[in-house]
Amino acid sequence: MEATLFFFFANILLLSTSRASPFQSHLLLHNSDGAATAAANHLHVSQISCPSWRLAVETNNIFGWDLVPEACEDYVANYMLGCQYQEDSFAVTSIALEYAKNLTLGEDGKDIWVFDIDETALSEIDYYSQPDVAFGAKEFNETKKNEYLKEAKAPPLPAVLEFYNNLLPLGYKIVFISGTSESYREYRELNMKRAGYHTWEKLLLKQTSEHGTTSVTFKSKKRTELVEAGYRIIGNMGDQWSDITGSNVGNRTFKLPNPMYYIA
Amino acid sequence: MEATLFFFFANILLLSTSRASPFQSHLLLHNSDGAATAAANHLHVSQISCPSWRLAVETNNIFGWDLVPEACEDYVANYMLGCQYQEDSFAVTSIALEYAKNLTLGEDGKDIWVFDIDETALSEIDYYSQPDVAFGAKEFNETKKNEYLKEAKAPPLPAVLEFYNNLLPLGYKIVFISGTSESYREYRELNMKRAGYHTWEKLLLKQTSEHGTTSVTFKSKKRTELVEAGYRIIGNMGDQWSDITGSNVGNRTFKLPNPMYYIA
Repeated sequence: MEATLFFFFANILLLSTSRASPFQSHLLLHNSDGAATAAANHLHVSQISCPSWRLAVETNNIFGWDLVPEACEDYVANYMLGCQYQEDSFAVTSIALEYAKNLTLGEDGKDIWVFDIDETALSEIDYYSQPDVAFGAKEFNETKKNEYLKEAKAPPLPAVLEFYNNLLPLGYKIVFISGTSESYREYRELNMKRAGYHTWEKLLLKQTSEHGTTSVTFKSKKRTELVEAGYRIIGNMGDQWSDITGSNVGNRTFKLPNPMYYIA
Repeated sequence: MEATLFFFFANILLLSTSRASPFQSHLLLHNSDGAATAAANHLHVSQISCPSWRLAVETNNIFGWDLVPEACEDYVANYMLGCQYQEDSFAVTSIALEYAKNLTLGEDGKDIWVFDIDETALSEIDYYSQPDVAFGAKEFNETKKNEYLKEAKAPPLPAVLEFYNNLLPLGYKIVFISGTSESYREYRELNMKRAGYHTWEKLLLKQTSEHGTTSVTFKSKKRTELVEAGYRIIGNMGDQWSDITGSNVGNRTFKLPNPMYYIA
């Protein structure tokens, strides 16, 4: 009886993997050379559907990826423009707020919350939704992106702006760390203020000497300098795993969604 | 013009958060005291939908959670019994296989892959789908769970069994680490063999002296002992963040989905 039940359940599981997917139009096929090509109407072990691809990105199972797979462009577009992205972001900031408001802060003003900027404090959806950017499915164009940064018109990610506005009266000092070059400071600060972020303890950008370092190295170094200056990193929030891994990540980290690009 | 565009996009973002959710039947409302109650037909900052809750669990934004929120029982049931859970699992193991097969292993037989057991090597869906377990939405019953373990009839998680069968010919040695008590060894080994896992380098369970330690501490200790014995942990796969965080996590870690329970 036990053996029968066992094989019964084993079969259910095995069969379920060959069932039709609700995401057939977004299936990817990984070739033996590792390249992803759009494909297929039935499930196969080497296929990754777009929802599974996104989950693998968000859980840091896939890393070092370059572009959104072409077959997932529409899927990512729908996610980013639909309410799920906003809901997922608000979920992260509500959890963070529950944590932040239940702590007793020191009286020396050294308790800080670290935020990344792009796809965290600010949302670049209007940039990424352009046809030649295609939500990260087309090759990155640095010149075009830098022009966009100079326009300084990115709106806030609503969940993060609201969270920021809740953190300030609790006594947290805010530190923004971004991999943008220091030479863009005026544009970045203008954008932050336009978006509703009017105050911060520090807004740290990449110095010329730091160009060429990965984001995880750069951000670890900045956080270490903060800790050495006596700050306590109570929370740290970003959309990239490189924002919240490395050294001195903070007492607690929060990963916002971003299926559009990967920064090492 | 720029300012107009800016406010236009800001409004799109703000409006999109109040749009109707496709997951209205699964919305949660977090009360001011932090308790979750089922609720609501429109979005509000303090609400977390079940898809957002699951993503927050999988990205380790929520931790230390006790039960699946009652309002998400059906959502979790549908996820676990539908094809998405299997697809997500196969995505993780395909990524892991791409990694595993592109490495050159040492000739000393010391390259190992570490696996957790429950919801990793084995699937306990048949246990969790019982009405009084309710996919983790009902209080954990240790006696009932121990009886289930003694039946030793859990089927494999198909993605992981296939991955295991691909790892062996590549030369990887397999180490299973589970927080189950050593006193259950005979049942666990029987279950593993019935499920198709016929060989392993080690299958490590919790000794009496280790009861009371958290999983992350216990598993870190076991991995450290492996490294000190000369093993190289090339990969480490589990369904809990406590499987893949702590010390000596391995060269690369892989998080399988599990929205049913949390182990610290």
